[in-house]
Amino acid sequence: MPAPLRVAMIGNGFMGAAHSQGWRTAPRFFDLPAIPEMTVMVGRDPDKNAALAQRWGWAEASQDFDAVIARDDIDVVDIVTPGNLHCDMAIAALEAGKHVLCEKPLANTVEEAKRMDAAATAAAERGVLAMVGFTYRRVPAAAFARDLVARGALGTIRQVRAQYLQDWLSDPEAPLTWRMDKSKAGSGALGDIGAHAIDMAQFITGQTIDSVSGVMETFVKERPTMGEGQGLSGSAGEGRGPVTVDDYAAFNGRFDSGALGTFEATRFATGRKNALRVEVAGDKGSILFDLEDMNAIQYYDATAPATEQGFRRIYVTEADHPYLEAWWPPGHMLGYEHGFSHQVKDLVEALAAGVQPTPSFADGYQVQRVLDAVERSAGDGSAWVSTQA
Amino acid sequence: MPAPLRVAMIGNGFMGAAHSQGWRTAPRFFDLPAIPEMTVMVGRDPDKNAALAQRWGWAEASQDFDAVIARDDIDVVDIVTPGNLHCDMAIAALEAGKHVLCEKPLANTVEEAKRMDAAATAAAERGVLAMVGFTYRRVPAAAFARDLVARGALGTIRQVRAQYLQDWLSDPEAPLTWRMDKSKAGSGALGDIGAHAIDMAQFITGQTIDSVSGVMETFVKERPTMGEGQGLSGSAGEGRGPVTVDDYAAFNGRFDSGALGTFEATRFATGRKNALRVEVAGDKGSILFDLEDMNAIQYYDATAPATEQGFRRIYVTEADHPYLEAWWPPGHMLGYEHGFSHQVKDLVEALAAGVQPTPSFADGYQVQRVLDAVERSAGDGSAWVSTQA
Amino acid sequence: MPAPLRVAMIGNGFMGAAHSQGWRTAPRFFDLPAIPEMTVMVGRDPDKNAALAQRWGWAEASQDFDAVIARDDIDVVDIVTPGNLHCDMAIAALEAGKHVLCEKPLANTVEEAKRMDAAATAAAERGVLAMVGFTYRRVPAAAFARDLVARGALGTIRQVRAQYLQDWLSDPEAPLTWRMDKSKAGSGALGDIGAHAIDMAQFITGQTIDSVSGVMETFVKERPTMGEGQGLSGSAGEGRGPVTVDDYAAFNGRFDSGALGTFEATRFATGRKNALRVEVAGDKGSILFDLEDMNAIQYYDATAPATEQGFRRIYVTEADHPYLEAWWPPGHMLGYEHGFSHQVKDLVEALAAGVQPTPSFADGYQVQRVLDAVERSAGDGSAWVSTQA
Amino acid sequence: MPAPLRVAMIGNGFMGAAHSQGWRTAPRFFDLPAIPEMTVMVGRDPDKNAALAQRWGWAEASQDFDAVIARDDIDVVDIVTPGNLHCDMAIAALEAGKHVLCEKPLANTVEEAKRMDAAATAAAERGVLAMVGFTYRRVPAAAFARDLVARGALGTIRQVRAQYLQDWLSDPEAPLTWRMDKSKAGSGALGDIGAHAIDMAQFITGQTIDSVSGVMETFVKERPTMGEGQGLSGSAGEGRGPVTVDDYAAFNGRFDSGALGTFEATRFATGRKNALRVEVAGDKGSILFDLEDMNAIQYYDATAPATEQGFRRIYVTEADHPYLEAWWPPGHMLGYEHGFSHQVKDLVEALAAGVQPTPSFADGYQVQRVLDAVERSAGDGSAWVSTQA
Repeated sequence: MPAPLRVAMIGNGFMGAAHSQGWRTAPRFFDLPAIPEMTVMVGRDPDKNAALAQRWGWAEASQDFDAVIARDDIDVVDIVTPGNLHCDMAIAALEAGKHVLCEKPLANTVEEAKRMDAAATAAAERGVLAMVGFTYRRVPAAAFARDLVARGALGTIRQVRAQYLQDWLSDPEAPLTWRMDKSKAGSGALGDIGAHAIDMAQFITGQTIDSVSGVMETFVKERPTMGEGQGLSGSAGEGRGPVTVDDYAAFNGRFDSGALGTFEATRFATGRKNALRVEVAGDKGSILFDLEDMNAIQYYDATAPATEQGFRRIYVTEADHPYLEAWWPPGHMLGYEHGFSHQVKDLVEALAAGVQPTPSFADGYQVQRVLDAVERSAGDGSAWVSTQA
Repeated sequence: MPAPLRVAMIGNGFMGAAHSQGWRTAPRFFDLPAIPEMTVMVGRDPDKNAALAQRWGWAEASQDFDAVIARDDIDVVDIVTPGNLHCDMAIAALEAGKHVLCEKPLANTVEEAKRMDAAATAAAERGVLAMVGFTYRRVPAAAFARDLVARGALGTIRQVRAQYLQDWLSDPEAPLTWRMDKSKAGSGALGDIGAHAIDMAQFITGQTIDSVSGVMETFVKERPTMGEGQGLSGSAGEGRGPVTVDDYAAFNGRFDSGALGTFEATRFATGRKNALRVEVAGDKGSILFDLEDMNAIQYYDATAPATEQGFRRIYVTEADHPYLEAWWPPGHMLGYEHGFSHQVKDLVEALAAGVQPTPSFADGYQVQRVLDAVERSAGDGSAWVSTQA
Repeated sequence: MPAPLRVAMIGNGFMGAAHSQGWRTAPRFFDLPAIPEMTVMVGRDPDKNAALAQRWGWAEASQDFDAVIARDDIDVVDIVTPGNLHCDMAIAALEAGKHVLCEKPLANTVEEAKRMDAAATAAAERGVLAMVGFTYRRVPAAAFARDLVARGALGTIRQVRAQYLQDWLSDPEAPLTWRMDKSKAGSGALGDIGAHAIDMAQFITGQTIDSVSGVMETFVKERPTMGEGQGLSGSAGEGRGPVTVDDYAAFNGRFDSGALGTFEATRFATGRKNALRVEVAGDKGSILFDLEDMNAIQYYDATAPATEQGFRRIYVTEADHPYLEAWWPPGHMLGYEHGFSHQVKDLVEALAAGVQPTPSFADGYQVQRVLDAVERSAGDGSAWVSTQA
Repeated sequence: MPAPLRVAMIGNGFMGAAHSQGWRTAPRFFDLPAIPEMTVMVGRDPDKNAALAQRWGWAEASQDFDAVIARDDIDVVDIVTPGNLHCDMAIAALEAGKHVLCEKPLANTVEEAKRMDAAATAAAERGVLAMVGFTYRRVPAAAFARDLVARGALGTIRQVRAQYLQDWLSDPEAPLTWRMDKSKAGSGALGDIGAHAIDMAQFITGQTIDSVSGVMETFVKERPTMGEGQGLSGSAGEGRGPVTVDDYAAFNGRFDSGALGTFEATRFATGRKNALRVEVAGDKGSILFDLEDMNAIQYYDATAPATEQGFRRIYVTEADHPYLEAWWPPGHMLGYEHGFSHQVKDLVEALAAGVQPTPSFADGYQVQRVLDAVERSAGDGSAWVSTQA
């Protein structure tokens, strides 16, 4: 009989819904060594938090983070708050002896990320483990792409193209939200979605970005402010306010192997909704992952006879593909939130085995250093900046 | 405070897992007028059934169908057994005053379906309602396709192409399972997947198939039998046994509007895993739905300027698309099992409002008449056969 | 020094432009054993014919078919007139000792085709050779598809799906042209484009269609007549006239191997401009050819490891692909008219070697028997009709 | 009766074959105000040149460039030699009073390009005109993309992604050719294919790249030398030699409007054969051109209702699309060499009208300045470099 694993989730926004679905669903499909219990959800607004906790299946609701992390009946703290709160919360939870799952990006600044990494290292010595939530690693097609690379199917990797393309700001009248406010969001397209492109490129290649040369831009400098109490879908208010983060970031990066990569993160790619694309080319083959076609991977085998080479679209839905044995027959699609179930599975298995889950806070810190290096490069006329700590 | 809606599910195979996910998940994302309670799951093998009931979140497990439908604390009976059991179970449940959700195809024979339709009609007079589970209607892209047709975007519809292409039998050494046994499965590709192609074509067009001319074929007449106790993925046993159902069915159909359709259901379309495709062409436009690309619809607007016409690939992930408001931001994909949550939503809403859910048993009976007409046509040299009752 | 091969072309419509491009271009790219000379073009209207002959590069223009085929300085007669003239012209040319290239379909009726086949057989005994112009066989991707099948890459073929989809009649106000007049065109979608689907399916599989069951339809029975002197692009005249051919034909066919095929030819597939598609599925793999993506072939290798199977899109532009060595580097596209150059190459090589070019009049006659069988089946309630002579 | 336009072509490599096809074919399909005569082809090797002149349809062959440009019976000099010869030849021809068509890139250095531009400006005052051969502008889909942008369909353009991806060097054992020798080729991927990406991005947007920040790389520093007398397809010789040009170039560019662009030119994009892709995003829409799908354009209309937005794939084969009226019915594909016929058409029309053909030498010089700025930026740690003269 598997032991329970008691979870407190901090935050109740869009990511809270996704994480809740992961905690709720993973044990229904996977044989886990411990069974997650959705013990308590923490949020600031009592009414909203209580209602969502019930909706999403959390046994209790609380407004008191400190009290929650002090409880004996909590094993894991899952942090899905805005980025500016990650650092203090994650360190406090680790110090309270709780395993931590923290949403990406790990922090809003490289200094915070460094402190978090140090706290995670210290906690690990006490058997307390930390993980950062780059969930897209758990899309089966992405995991399979990594497997292909890892077994040498691509040969020597020479170049990478990683993009995260969205378009929700291409309309200059789209209203101002907290995501365009540097004090809360840290950065714009770069940290929000560029972080995914960086992590995915490093994950699939198994390589690290050593240095970068980049540019960032805010195309639309002012936007309509939103009326009181309105959410993301609110209509515009009467005034206008400044956009203090980037709309767009593009950079060239050098991997530790010597491979080169082009990276692009934008909220102005009209028509592209959620296009996290990573193409990796080696001397024996190449692969293309695209989150807008997330159940498939494109694979080109350059060792096939010349007349038979072509990008093949593999539906990553076979029982032998990563995570798939738990789900449906071949050809039945998975969606966005399945990655959160896979994240729960991997985290629970790591915790039960007492091994470091991945991606670790060190991995998150490394991504943060790349983000920071891009910002510094962009501020210094695109001069090359090292990502070394 | 919404009332509870207490559910008994009969059957615990692959479809049971999918239905359970629907019952469990729908109230987490949709505001339902009644909250489903997963009261009891019924299955023959006590140990397997108890284990799966716990896994999937059912409060109780039972082996006694009759006792379960006699209980006062059951409102809905959800039947996910093989097709040969549908008729007796559905009628018994309706007569016991329970609402019924019955998996497709409604029955294994047209006579059974006719009796079920009559029972549903009688039950409806007592406020007891029945629905058949053509879940693919609830894929947002399919529902949106129907909306486009319904508002006249395609003009006068002239032709339809509906296919359900799979390939799991194209290997002649794939082993014999109950799905190739006529006594259990009723028919092969025709009833299993052709039924979906028929329902989807009628659903999207809003039209009815009046008559058909078809052909059926069993390409591989004998297959290796499976060893004892093996599931779908079991390796072959030592003997060989006869395939008593069709591998392939193709037919031409005439709709009540005069439009013509080509239909194909096959388990031999090598490389096609789950390709339910429906293309509908009218004088003002056309649409193509493909279940292997289930988050999108292809739409061609023939009223645009000639130089600007083209099939546009619409990601059906906007908040205003069917069912999408409950889920994720634009560009975030849904998967196979979301249709089961949507089915629960639609059923619960219809039951709460006391209106007939769709598709009804009458709709299921109509599909069954098409299946039957195809079989009769195939047995009569492809002569045209009416689908009228 | 290669000998000249002196050509007379009969007809000066759209096909005349395409054939002229073939005759003119083939010797510029291929090393031919004889060099085509564009000696004379025959047409009815003297002014138009003279102007087009000069435009297209023919040395002379003539209105006198009989005189031209009697000339000593003509080696090949290339017939690109409407189908109702093929039979008499081809037989006369063969009897005059000229090699003949005749556009498809070979004739408007099966009786004509039979006579032409007999004439070709008789001529062949005198060393006079005949070929029918199913040019799409010469699209490199189609030729490569056939090669894949021929070397067994697909294993045992079970099913075929062949479609030729166009949409130029889906507008019910599209005007009446000679192609909708049975006395000139013979049939509508069936003979015009269905003939290509039939030939391509037989060509790629290397198999013959033995029997068929089909349906034909004229969706729009009357259309606006065109004003005087107007061409295909003319605006509608004032009256309306009857459409006397089919808009749409669909049939099931049985190949001599036992494989089954679905076939569809339509001018009402809104949004499909020139979609000649042939998908062939065997137990070891499958291929998809699509004329709207004519520089590529989709190939699925079912013998690859299960996790690595997928349709691969092969650009058929490598030097080792059929016909490609003569053209451009990999990745440089060919277009519609290249097939006509390839046809010239193959014909000239066959004539120089004194061997039968393919497709022969016997092949054309076989396609005509399939067309005829479809018409008879459609007229007999879709009863199965043999294509045997 | 149109006047003749007498052409001398200098060079007889791959580009000579393509240009010859353009000169030969354009007057067969377009109504030109002057009829090109293929008067003389100039090449160094007498036997090879004479043979190819005959093959390609040139009336004479010559080894004497100076004598040819001095002839009275030459109106146009078409230069298709390697880039290091462009400057002297083009200037000499212009000074001899001949119109000049010069292949891209205009020159191997920015200094040469500047001199050529000056010579063209001076010649224009005497009515002698010059054009540079960025032929891909004449792909109908590219020209149509520009038309869409020019009429405002995309609104305010914010970002551009332009790539030219090839893979013929991804195998480290691919042999050394003149294209990897800086003394002959000037640069590698950057000048050869990056020049196309730059020109196409500027052409479609109608904007100019003002400044750039870039990186260049030679992944494989040594390659097998080729044996004597071997062509591009020759097998490797015994030694190894240095690669003195770039394999890869990537840069960020700023347009004069303030829009940003990412640019990539590579011969290491395994699986990409000839992928010149330009995506342009504005606040009202976006377009994607891909040379590997050259008969179509992807267009996204962001002004459509939110539920109906999607990239539409427009086959650019309608009679009203650029250049198409001369060719085949809708849905019939054009290929690589059609651009050369279109180039001839546009050049002949400009010469007949006495107006400047485009792209001019000034346009070619501007592209050259971008190439030069990228090289300087790459040599200066990716510092931003202006492209101003």
